[in-house]
Amino acid sequence: MKVYNPDFKNRIIDHLGKQRFMQHIGFTLDVIEPGSTEGWLNFEQIHQQQKGFAHGGLVATLADITAGFAAVTLVPADCSVVTGEIKISYLNPGIGDKLIARGWVLKQGRKMNFCEAEVLASNKGHEKLIAKASATMVTIFPDDNYK
Amino acid sequence: MKVYNPDFKNRIIDHLGKQRFMQHIGFTLDVIEPGSTEGWLNFEQIHQQQKGFAHGGLVATLADITAGFAAVTLVPADCSVVTGEIKISYLNPGIGDKLIARGWVLKQGRKMNFCEAEVLASNKGHEKLIAKASATMVTIFPDDNYK
Amino acid sequence: MKVYNPDFKNRIIDHLGKQRFMQHIGFTLDVIEPGSTEGWLNFEQIHQQQKGFAHGGLVATLADITAGFAAVTLVPADCSVVTGEIKISYLNPGIGDKLIARGWVLKQGRKMNFCEAEVLASNKGHEKLIAKASATMVTIFPDDNYK
Amino acid sequence: MKVYNPDFKNRIIDHLGKQRFMQHIGFTLDVIEPGSTEGWLNFEQIHQQQKGFAHGGLVATLADITAGFAAVTLVPADCSVVTGEIKISYLNPGIGDKLIARGWVLKQGRKMNFCEAEVLASNKGHEKLIAKASATMVTIFPDDNYK
Repeated sequence: MKVYNPDFKNRIIDHLGKQRFMQHIGFTLDVIEPGSTEGWLNFEQIHQQQKGFAHGGLVATLADITAGFAAVTLVPADCSVVTGEIKISYLNPGIGDKLIARGWVLKQGRKMNFCEAEVLASNKGHEKLIAKASATMVTIFPDDNYK
Repeated sequence: MKVYNPDFKNRIIDHLGKQRFMQHIGFTLDVIEPGSTEGWLNFEQIHQQQKGFAHGGLVATLADITAGFAAVTLVPADCSVVTGEIKISYLNPGIGDKLIARGWVLKQGRKMNFCEAEVLASNKGHEKLIAKASATMVTIFPDDNYK
Repeated sequence: MKVYNPDFKNRIIDHLGKQRFMQHIGFTLDVIEPGSTEGWLNFEQIHQQQKGFAHGGLVATLADITAGFAAVTLVPADCSVVTGEIKISYLNPGIGDKLIARGWVLKQGRKMNFCEAEVLASNKGHEKLIAKASATMVTIFPDDNYK
Repeated sequence: MKVYNPDFKNRIIDHLGKQRFMQHIGFTLDVIEPGSTEGWLNFEQIHQQQKGFAHGGLVATLADITAGFAAVTLVPADCSVVTGEIKISYLNPGIGDKLIARGWVLKQGRKMNFCEAEVLASNKGHEKLIAKASATMVTIFPDDNYK
């Protein structure tokens, strides 16, 4: 995979400061590598659905963030990235003290980046895969009117 | 479609009180009919990604909630519903003063309910479709160990 | 939706002559309108999986063809269309004397067209929905190296 | 993962004899292991869309077959498997002398098996990933009326 913007890390750190929804759910993205990112949150009551498990929408959010920023690491500095579509399969109920998410680019294209992500629930250091996602992340060029 | 639990509305209202994540994002589910539900939120800064649009994860959450509760309206009182998988296509950027979501059951099955949902952004009463979702909502029976 | 190539019908008819796989399965595309297409096949033994139902891959093929050509009706004459991704939900087993498929563009974009398709099994004129699909059809421009 | 039917290989070989659509496209499933299967076909004109690439529906079929039979290897002898839904992302155009498909179970559940599959195009022994799929394979019990 090719990195078009060597300064991708600072670019993403700048983005993170403006990601209000990510902040609202308390997620921290702390690994930013070419073609992949990783992050975590402390699992709290605000993240739960009615049974006390991680809400499916929360899990989808972590997959979307890590897959999307994985694509951002690869695009040129004057391009941006939007989610075209994402599918999340829920493998196990999310319960534990932490949720961990990892996203990566499976295939880099000029206009589209096919990405995947996985979300794990960690309980006292024991990790369990709770969701797997597949997404199309679309590269937006300076002369695109959005998409 | 067949309603197995005539008291489905009260059941869902009871669920809503425990939906911490839904409360955390400020979503209100206010239409609960057999096989479909609808709700809304006031679009605020906390819902935004770095460009000021509705976060993809937030939009996925609204689709998941309305499609999931649409399935809940149909299942027997001793059964529950979990999301098996959901796919969300992002058609337009989410911007406006309100987000509105509608979910419905496309095909009711004994073990699985195929559902769809749409999310709209409303700006001064003018609605625009911003996302469409397709999901498999799984019925959990009393003697299932989850799934 | 905007039609960029008024001669879209002839263009598609020309394509159909080269669609070897479509011919191999015996599918006929006979409705070609701006933003939507429709076709059918006589359901025969060659289309079956081990239980005598329509094979899931066959059903996916019909969804892909009708959704893809729906997108082709809208793109400029010098552009082409490829499937970025498609998801098919199987609602009912496919059994009958005919399979009918309809595809349409849900949201036309410059680079991507969000499409849907449905597949029905017809038995003595009685139609039943057997599958619903959601797809991203990607517009390929003359200066794209494929995608 | 747990194998409930030690005779899974013979069971699948028996199924293959009745898979008319699979035979019609010329696909051979020749690796059947607990939780995974693999097969191939010689890429010919009948498999092509109008540009000479592997048809998207054909690629979906290979993903569906290998992921589905991967699930069959794990279920009890009196249960069967149907595809609940499948999503295929098309990463590269399919061109070469052979197509190879591999499917596996990502998470085995009592009622649902989350599976993945990949399809590769081989040209003179050089393999290229052309598609990745994610699917929900549903276990059908003897007392289910289908699903």
